[in-house]
Amino acid sequence: MFVEIITIGDELLIGQVIDTNSAWMGKQLNNVGFEVIRVTSVRDREDEILEAVDAAMKRVDVVLMTGGLGPTKDDITKYTLCKYFGTELVFSEEVFENIKRILANRITMNPLNKAQALVPKDCTVINNKVGTASVSWFEKNGKVLVSMPGVPQEMKYNMSEEVIPRLCSRFKMQAIVHKTYTVKNYPESALAIALTDWENQLPECIKLAYLPKSGIVRLRLTGRGNNEDDIRNIVLREGIKLYDILGENVLDENDIPLEEIIGKLLKEQKLTLSTAESCTGGNIAARITSVPGCSAYFKGSVVAYSNEVKNELLQVSEDALNRYGAVSEEVVKEMVKGAMNSLKTDCAVAVSGIAGPDGGTAEKPVGTVWIAAAYGKTIQTLKQSVDFGRELNIERATNNALLLLQEILK
Amino acid sequence: MFVEIITIGDELLIGQVIDTNSAWMGKQLNNVGFEVIRVTSVRDREDEILEAVDAAMKRVDVVLMTGGLGPTKDDITKYTLCKYFGTELVFSEEVFENIKRILANRITMNPLNKAQALVPKDCTVINNKVGTASVSWFEKNGKVLVSMPGVPQEMKYNMSEEVIPRLCSRFKMQAIVHKTYTVKNYPESALAIALTDWENQLPECIKLAYLPKSGIVRLRLTGRGNNEDDIRNIVLREGIKLYDILGENVLDENDIPLEEIIGKLLKEQKLTLSTAESCTGGNIAARITSVPGCSAYFKGSVVAYSNEVKNELLQVSEDALNRYGAVSEEVVKEMVKGAMNSLKTDCAVAVSGIAGPDGGTAEKPVGTVWIAAAYGKTIQTLKQSVDFGRELNIERATNNALLLLQEILK
Repeated sequence: MFVEIITIGDELLIGQVIDTNSAWMGKQLNNVGFEVIRVTSVRDREDEILEAVDAAMKRVDVVLMTGGLGPTKDDITKYTLCKYFGTELVFSEEVFENIKRILANRITMNPLNKAQALVPKDCTVINNKVGTASVSWFEKNGKVLVSMPGVPQEMKYNMSEEVIPRLCSRFKMQAIVHKTYTVKNYPESALAIALTDWENQLPECIKLAYLPKSGIVRLRLTGRGNNEDDIRNIVLREGIKLYDILGENVLDENDIPLEEIIGKLLKEQKLTLSTAESCTGGNIAARITSVPGCSAYFKGSVVAYSNEVKNELLQVSEDALNRYGAVSEEVVKEMVKGAMNSLKTDCAVAVSGIAGPDGGTAEKPVGTVWIAAAYGKTIQTLKQSVDFGRELNIERATNNALLLLQEILK
Repeated sequence: MFVEIITIGDELLIGQVIDTNSAWMGKQLNNVGFEVIRVTSVRDREDEILEAVDAAMKRVDVVLMTGGLGPTKDDITKYTLCKYFGTELVFSEEVFENIKRILANRITMNPLNKAQALVPKDCTVINNKVGTASVSWFEKNGKVLVSMPGVPQEMKYNMSEEVIPRLCSRFKMQAIVHKTYTVKNYPESALAIALTDWENQLPECIKLAYLPKSGIVRLRLTGRGNNEDDIRNIVLREGIKLYDILGENVLDENDIPLEEIIGKLLKEQKLTLSTAESCTGGNIAARITSVPGCSAYFKGSVVAYSNEVKNELLQVSEDALNRYGAVSEEVVKEMVKGAMNSLKTDCAVAVSGIAGPDGGTAEKPVGTVWIAAAYGKTIQTLKQSVDFGRELNIERATNNALLLLQEILK
């Protein structure tokens, strides 16, 4: 069952707001077996909205729209849809009651808010329990178009509580099963080669997608069919073959980020972690602390941008700093030991490098980064070269540090 | 001059990846006078890509595409565009050399990587200095289509360095002058009210946009006309009036991020900075070190997630921790002093709070954050309440900490 999403608003086109609605909707719809085949974002212009709606209604059975339902004059979606479906706006007492309830204790009713109780005549109106703009459900020639508010929280509530349940009972659906495997140590192309035979023998009902990002590739298997249990078994069986080929390079099969995988490993083994960061400047700590509940294993970090801080807070010897320089295997090893020592943790990860654009030398050009991960007396190091620009150098170093840490924890 | 963007990839439609490319592109294009009127995201299917490309090429003069250029077989953009433009793929030695350079020291060349050196014959090929997928610039009937890699960093680099400069010289544009004023201490609606009279008297050739984000509002004045000098003078004259109304609440007029404004202040006054972070977990340090050359003023940070680290590395007294709790004005004051002391800096900023989702109490609910900024003996503190979810709580605390630091440095 195919769906198109149309998101409306000038702010999306000038880049003021990132359209996060359609990705969220795509994910939810996918979970229940609807496949989004296109997302279109258009401006608040009648002709452009009409063109997008008409084209979508010709291609698919379900069109979901968000945005352009606010009280101000730039919001024209409701009027435009009346034109498209050949109907008119009428005042709804029920919607007006809801608007009064929503606005109570916040602002006094004004004519613009009251106008939000005008709804298309020939459609099913769904009262929006969390906002003032109602949801309109149109049907035409067996096809469905639903117009929802663009405020993410309101869209999410109405999708979950109203639109998806109604779509599922309106259309008969195939079963769908997704499983995502996170793979390390393989660039995308090398992974594709390693998996050629396996990929060629995949049953018809299974689709494979490669999703690479900074040092890891997520492999997504999607199965479709009439019987959910059968499909799930086929997906899992193919997943087992994947482990046979890739072994420990499969980090995880639940599509969770690297920092969460590390968190799980630390929790399971009841270990504590600290970081010592120079060029990554706190980015590793920030990633680790993005995970709720990380205080169970993460004690803290020393961001040692200056040599003085490396020496005083991480006990990196002046001798090592002078002899090898701050960006060296020796110093990064002393940093990782210093972190475990100063912050009293079982494990640590340390990074020192030249993020650029300045600070490079012939011997150590911009992009040179040394990384060390330690668990007790075991220390592993890694050197990163190649300059990708400051931002990407930092991001790559952060990812490589997390990968090295995962390696040593596993 | 109108532009459409087409982003390609199954991952966008099933919601696994949020399309952030098109918003970024829309913003950059806007800056140089191109207006994005539609964004379309389609799957990796030949017929769907062809339909989207053909429709876009009929509507506008410039079509920009991202995605579907990877080495694996689900990436079909290059082949599809050859079909659309009636051309074929040929091997490019120059692109191959670039691929070898990019892959050097990382992986050995394989057939799939080598195949990335196949480029459309009848187009301008732009070597991608930061990745293996090259950029293709097609022209047909006076219209331009550019296909770029979908990896955000690669797209950004190629847009900034290659595509936008080439578009600007290819099309004759009206002069456009932007000036962006960063304003603090005003929520968007309050700012709009304060600026009503000024806004009403703005000349026709000037457009105003409010760009609010986490505690600051950027006001962008855009002037268009035939003579760049005239337009610039008009924009600057309106900017002077803005200072008359808003005074010191105008942080900056060069649209540089807060961390760079702070860097400038520190450099001018030859001061050094450190941070002490609990719930922000390194995010403040990461923001500060995102600025090239920050080693001139930034010495480092202690991310003190556990009380033990607060006590040992930042000399926060056990008495204060026990009596007031880690999230308190007293502790955050001791943290900021500890940072200046341990890291031997002139200034510091410290944060301690409950980011959530757990850890809140009746007295200190999730979302409670204490912030302190210090310059020598002067310490200012700020309390943040209201829970916006972990991610946003951390982002708001980071921004508020930088704003408080700017306040004390100014």
